[in-house]
This record gives sequence, structure tokens and C-alpha cells, in this order.
Amino acid sequence: MSTVATEPLRRADDGASARNPAKVYQLHYWPTIQGRGEFVRLALEAAGASYVDVARKSASQGGGEAALAHALEEPAPRAAFAPPFLVDGNVVIGQTAAILLYLGPRLGLGGVGEADTIWTHQLQLTIADVVAEAHDTHHPLSVSMYYEDQREAALVRAKAFRDERIPKFLGWFEQVLQRNPAGDRHLVGDALTYADLSLFQLVAGLRYAFPKASARALADLPAVTRLHANVARRQRIHDYLHSSRRIAFNEDGIFRHYPELDD
Amino acid sequence: MSTVATEPLRRADDGASARNPAKVYQLHYWPTIQGRGEFVRLALEAAGASYVDVARKSASQGGGEAALAHALEEPAPRAAFAPPFLVDGNVVIGQTAAILLYLGPRLGLGGVGEADTIWTHQLQLTIADVVAEAHDTHHPLSVSMYYEDQREAALVRAKAFRDERIPKFLGWFEQVLQRNPAGDRHLVGDALTYADLSLFQLVAGLRYAFPKASARALADLPAVTRLHANVARRQRIHDYLHSSRRIAFNEDGIFRHYPELDD
Repeated sequence: MSTVATEPLRRADDGASARNPAKVYQLHYWPTIQGRGEFVRLALEAAGASYVDVARKSASQGGGEAALAHALEEPAPRAAFAPPFLVDGNVVIGQTAAILLYLGPRLGLGGVGEADTIWTHQLQLTIADVVAEAHDTHHPLSVSMYYEDQREAALVRAKAFRDERIPKFLGWFEQVLQRNPAGDRHLVGDALTYADLSLFQLVAGLRYAFPKASARALADLPAVTRLHANVARRQRIHDYLHSSRRIAFNEDGIFRHYPELDD
Repeated sequence: MSTVATEPLRRADDGASARNPAKVYQLHYWPTIQGRGEFVRLALEAAGASYVDVARKSASQGGGEAALAHALEEPAPRAAFAPPFLVDGNVVIGQTAAILLYLGPRLGLGGVGEADTIWTHQLQLTIADVVAEAHDTHHPLSVSMYYEDQREAALVRAKAFRDERIPKFLGWFEQVLQRNPAGDRHLVGDALTYADLSLFQLVAGLRYAFPKASARALADLPAVTRLHANVARRQRIHDYLHSSRRIAFNEDGIFRHYPELDD
């Protein structure tokens, strides 16, 4: 269910496209959440790349959480610290931003030339910072404690995130779009990059977790709002979002909707 | 004081060396802390690169915190979200890991070939994760609140960091060193990379902030311990650490020594 090999490749002028349709990437990530793996899924989907979302397969096919945890413990010289990790032949790459750096030129989503490549990556790293802060709104004290046991701290942290951090981060992305010499429809130049896809995902996650605070912030951010809508309208992304491959947001992931954190 | 142009370039077999000694990089970072800028300073210093630590200059020479804050607000299309940022001619790069990705091949500190380049970067991103968590031990609720006002939450977060996260992260780096087919003296291959320098800085910071917890963790991690010592013994790094260019750790930075957080 998680391969997209059946989807025909688009013409080059339809946007990003996989350079080598025979290649099949393996993505390893927790099978029941979007989490950080979703940034990789979106890039693979947007490019029409063939991939297997390994942990979402059945246990008999090597999937499941136990197999994923086991894979992390293999004594490979370059085993990743944590999911997601991508396997491409003999290459294993962990860290979401590093995976996207690797996939960028292969999927036509990394910007053209060194300056754009680094700028795209810089944008991704800033998105990663927001994502980590969004996670910590519900786990400000420890990842190994239940939310309920750190709820009081979460209320304080979430307020600071809503009032200060969401407007600051999204405002910066609005500025990046507004100042893009090639126009405000993309973050880098006038073509889709993984940074656009990741900003789409960030907005989607913030709207899920903090619907009120996100609406307040986005009211003044027309370019970010439009980028989110435009990405969702791309044919492959549209198809993906309406497929069973897209896991719904839920309260096990990074973006969690706890109404008390959005007051 | 913050240029190193007077230090002679070493022979190539002495390790990393700047490819173009005529070039002068501009580093922009808060002038009174090591912080995230230190990872960039260490790379520039290790390579004998010429650079200006702009904010450490006098206000009349364009330095100081006010000038740095002002620089961030310039309406440049690719203005960084936050310091540090590096200026190399017309190129401006923010995000510590992106700066190191850019400097890597220029300073001979980025690994050789794509697989090593991505692996070096993946290591750096994992170090960045620990650094962010180390920061949040003293600011678990909000960056805009005083430490004293979030001390109770800090006690809980620091305990989880000491007991679970420090051993897990440093243990993973030990494993990376032990499993390196080229030997356990470097993280990537058998030559110095910015990941080695950053792991040195991570260990130095953890030892400053959490001397007891770090000693406990490092007792079982001989390769990480030796890498830290070896980096400190490199001539250029030794000279740097004993110069006025190295800012001392202090309680305005990321790694802060609050004894109550190290119990």
C-alpha cells in the first residue's frame, strides 16, 4: 500500500520528477504517526518516486514497530540515532534534514546550484527547529513521562509557543516568500523544493494542534497561507493526502491537539 | 583580536587547511557567549581560515550586540532567522549545520565524497539535537522567561537529560567511533571533520554544565573521551583554546553550570 510505483511519472513541466524511476527507496519510520517521517514522505510523493514505507508493511513482510526498533539496533557502522532513516542501496541516512539533502537533487526538489541548495537546507533546518519546539509544547519536561504528568508545564510552554514562537517563525517564512526575487509562490526560486513541502506540513500540523493560535497568526500571512493551499492542490500531493498512505494526525505524533494548549 | 590571519598556514599533512588563504569569512554571532557560533569558530580555527568575528569588534568597527541585532533586520532576501550566520562575499548562510555544510569542502573538514559528506552532516545534526536539549534543561518553559522563574521545571527536565539523554546520545557517538572501519580516532574515516570538532565542543559543554553527570557517562566511553582530548591537543585548536578568541563558558550561553541541575 505504501509504494507509489503505479502512479505514472509526470512530464518534466509538471514539476519535480524522479530521475530514476526504477529505483525504490526504503523509508523506515514509525508506522502510526506522521511525525518527522512525513517530511520525507511528502518529498517522495511529490516527486512520484517509488518507495516502500517499510514499517507500515505487515510483520511477515518485515514491517511493524518491533522490526523498526530492531533495525535501529543492527550493528551497522552508520546506524542512525533514531527514525526516520532512508535506505538507498548501500547508503543509510538518518536525520530528516540530511535525508532531504540527499534526496533533493535526486528528486529535483533541492534547488539548483550551491547557493539555492544551501538556502533550501537552511529553510528546512529552521522548520526542524519549529517542529522540535512544537513537540516540546506537550513534552516540556521529558520524552519518557506521560503528557498528563507534565501538563502544568505544558500549559506554560504552549502559551509561549503560541504567543511568541508561532508568529515569529511563520512571520519569518512570510518574509522569505515576500522577499523572494522570483516571486512569492515558492520559498526558493520559482520551483517547488522540499522546503515548500515542509512548510506546507508545518502549517498543516500547527493548524491541527493549535487551530486558534494558527488562525490568528496566519490571518496576517497571505503568502504562507497561499503556499500551503497551493501545495495541497498539486496533483500528486492531493492524491497522497486523500490516500490511505497519509496517516491522520493523532495524539501520538509531534503535532497533538490538546485543546487546553490552544487557549 | 578575532582574525587569525597572522597564524601561518600549516602543511597539508598537518590536517585540514584553508584552500584559499586570501579569503576572509565574516562570522556574525553574539559576542559574549560560545553558543552555537562556537561550532563555526572551531571549524574556522581548525582549518587556519581567516575570519572576522564581527560582533566581537568594537561598535565603531561595526561590532557589538546592537549591530548584530540590526544586521538580522536588514531587508535582505535571504536574511537568517537567527545568529550565527556566515557571510562569504555575496552569500549569507544561517543555521549552524548549514554553515558547516557550506564550509566543509572549503576547509577540508567535510568528508570526502557524497556518502561521507552526508554522514558528517548527519552527525552534526544529531549533535545539534543534543545542544538544543542541553539548552532546554535551563529553559524548559520559555526562552523569554528568566531561569529563576522556571527553575522547578528545569530540575525535572535536567534530571531526565542527565539520566537518559546524555548517556543515550554520548553512547551513540561512542558506538559510531567504535564501529568506524577506519579506526576509532575520528567519527568519519581517518581524518578530522567538523563533526569531530563539534563532538569535542559538546563534550566540553556537557562537562562544564553537568560535571558529575558527564563524568559518570564518560567513564564508560573511552573513544569519545579520547577524541575530546585529541582535538584539544591539535596545535591550532590548542592555540585557539588558550587565546582571547575563546570565550569562557558562562551562564548566558547554552551550556550553563547551575549546580542544582547536576545533582
